[in-house]
Amino acid sequence: MLKNVDAVKKANVYFDGKVNSRTLQQADGSKVTLGFMLAGDYTFNTNEKELMTVLQGAMTVLLPGETEWQTFTEEEEFIVPKNSAFQVKVTEYADYSCSYIAE
Amino acid sequence: MLKNVDAVKKANVYFDGKVNSRTLQQADGSKVTLGFMLAGDYTFNTNEKELMTVLQGAMTVLLPGETEWQTFTEEEEFIVPKNSAFQVKVTEYADYSCSYIAE
Repeated sequence: MLKNVDAVKKANVYFDGKVNSRTLQQADGSKVTLGFMLAGDYTFNTNEKELMTVLQGAMTVLLPGETEWQTFTEEEEFIVPKNSAFQVKVTEYADYSCSYIAE
Repeated sequence: MLKNVDAVKKANVYFDGKVNSRTLQQADGSKVTLGFMLAGDYTFNTNEKELMTVLQGAMTVLLPGETEWQTFTEEEEFIVPKNSAFQVKVTEYADYSCSYIAE
């Protein structure tokens, strides 16, 4: 449970809605998104450093500078550097949270 | 913006994820879900009276006891009685909120 947050009502919609997320603003000013990806291949760009946590399902990820794809399942997490891009393959669905880390 | 809510991290997943929603608990104890439907035909059952509001996109709805389908778009809303069922057709996507109304 994320306590005491302000939730933006409208979803963030990517890839025709196959990826959608909700933005939550925490009391300390930090932002978390809770997102959902359906099956597909996606590339995401980062502006900030991101901590991605899989909540349900699984995603297979190619992190920037890596040559090996890694699969992350429930409760597993990974970090993506700011101003980079990462690729994601989802075969069923992936429920995730994304925290933005100021540097 | 929904202020000062507690957000359940994990999504509610329906229809293989083609419908997914997030549960938000408000300070007064009431519950709101923010949900997202991809294209498809769905039937939903209600336990409580529901106020459905379309946030983005559109959904075409057959309310219980009605014979005419109605299309609801951004900022339009409808009420579904408790202990009933309603049918929804989505052609692209529908971003919505659902408030549960105690009777």
